[in-house]
Amino acid sequence: MKVSVKVPATTANLGPGFDCLGLALPIYNEITVEETVMPGSGIEINIIEDSETYDVLSIPKDENNIVYKAIELLYNFVGQTVSDIKITIKTNIPVTRGLGSSAAVIVGGLLAANKLLGSPADDAVLLSIASEVEGHPDNVTPAMFGGCCLASMEDDGSVIYTKMDWPSDWKLNILIPDYELDTKIARSILPEKITVADAAFNVRKCAMLVDAICRHDSELLKKSLKDKIHQPYRENLVKGFKELTELLNNKDDILGCVISGAGPAILVISVNDGFDKVKNDVKKIFDDKNVKCDIRTLNLENTGSVIL
Amino acid sequence: MKVSVKVPATTANLGPGFDCLGLALPIYNEITVEETVMPGSGIEINIIEDSETYDVLSIPKDENNIVYKAIELLYNFVGQTVSDIKITIKTNIPVTRGLGSSAAVIVGGLLAANKLLGSPADDAVLLSIASEVEGHPDNVTPAMFGGCCLASMEDDGSVIYTKMDWPSDWKLNILIPDYELDTKIARSILPEKITVADAAFNVRKCAMLVDAICRHDSELLKKSLKDKIHQPYRENLVKGFKELTELLNNKDDILGCVISGAGPAILVISVNDGFDKVKNDVKKIFDDKNVKCDIRTLNLENTGSVIL
Repeated sequence: MKVSVKVPATTANLGPGFDCLGLALPIYNEITVEETVMPGSGIEINIIEDSETYDVLSIPKDENNIVYKAIELLYNFVGQTVSDIKITIKTNIPVTRGLGSSAAVIVGGLLAANKLLGSPADDAVLLSIASEVEGHPDNVTPAMFGGCCLASMEDDGSVIYTKMDWPSDWKLNILIPDYELDTKIARSILPEKITVADAAFNVRKCAMLVDAICRHDSELLKKSLKDKIHQPYRENLVKGFKELTELLNNKDDILGCVISGAGPAILVISVNDGFDKVKNDVKKIFDDKNVKCDIRTLNLENTGSVIL
Repeated sequence: MKVSVKVPATTANLGPGFDCLGLALPIYNEITVEETVMPGSGIEINIIEDSETYDVLSIPKDENNIVYKAIELLYNFVGQTVSDIKITIKTNIPVTRGLGSSAAVIVGGLLAANKLLGSPADDAVLLSIASEVEGHPDNVTPAMFGGCCLASMEDDGSVIYTKMDWPSDWKLNILIPDYELDTKIARSILPEKITVADAAFNVRKCAMLVDAICRHDSELLKKSLKDKIHQPYRENLVKGFKELTELLNNKDDILGCVISGAGPAILVISVNDGFDKVKNDVKKIFDDKNVKCDIRTLNLENTGSVIL
């Protein structure tokens, strides 16, 4: 018996929403989990690269694989141990770009394994395990449920989340550069402490961001997409981000420009033909830095994971 | 010619919403500003105490009076200088309790003086001056406009704000103790820096708080009213807060318990008869500490300042 799950990419943080806000994107990985027929055959992890553009050789294929780790936690939760299992990951989400490829495979593996086990775990348990493996819930939540999610991992490991109504005319322009940025490095450059003033800045900007989404208020969104917790520290690792921010500042119909997750992908939110008007200038910024950049204008993915 | 303005009290912060969220309360100060007839008579500041309970002797009655300072900034804005002016403050809002008494008199003085000058300044200018004098916009915004306000002071000194729709069944129980706590002291005990983890905690809790208000979701509100920026540092200055938090934790129909502004007043948010059921236990906490405590259950004040 085998189960396959299709899981969307995600873009997290959205500027001030550090580790709590994320959006699902219509780019998908497919994760298949099967119990192997021969006992004792152990773990087998196969990775099939759908896209030609991205290198997936760095993904571990043994017990260190995050999908395997997540499945192991699920088996432990139901009082079983994983012995012989085959995991196939068909990747289409660019890896190490800040687009939630790890969240997608964790969620896919968990949903598939849970189905294989007869669905003993509910969504809350699966979300909690996925967040534990990922370290934060802002990618795994929209990867599971689609849409725009606000999520908080509580002290007891449970995850509270809400799905917000993202306006359909707020376009998601994702700029995906051709170099990788290890999330661990992007996390390690964050300071351990920040000033109370900077913290208060993000508190009010994220509060306004949520209010702007609830109200579908483009002008308020524009004033909200500012951050002092992670972007100022990461901007030197994300080629073109500073120049892009300057280019897009106060441009008509451009609502904001933020680092996608830990980078190096960048999310530009626009309305109408705002992004089309600046697209050539955006390309030039990356050309000048000799960075190949895949630019995609996407709609929000609102379905989330689907068991195939 | 003289102008009088009635301005409501306010409770700011609401837990995670440090320096950005505030609610107006139906307790009022009345501020009257008049140009004195005799040139050269200088500044005259009179304070009339409406309530017997609170000492207002500490309010300065010269150029150091914050109402005078605010009015001076307004006169400067329109290219004039204040010379002879009489300010009368009829106080009913308890002072130095964390209920926005200073915000109320600043806003009242500004609105009255602006009217006297022929209304040269619009609301945006008045809000900006009031926030500058107060240092943050979370009290002055609801003091001006009433209701539940989310406000952010921008780098250029302007204030962005929205008024949120507070559910009418979320009751505001204000516990006002009989001792004062100087806001300067309550600010001075905050650390200069906090961990990124604590900052991220407040970001997500305040985001959820705003989402909870937008959705009128009591369960989400209950999970959102947590803070790691100011309350942990102030709780030793606010008598009974720790005990109250423990008492009210997970009580039916109690949505949360937070320090009002910089304290020492405390705000308990409840639905139905949730607060009535615990009122005696709440009283006992303060009795045990020999603190007299005035407990009032109030509705949100939704009008804001009114020129009389």
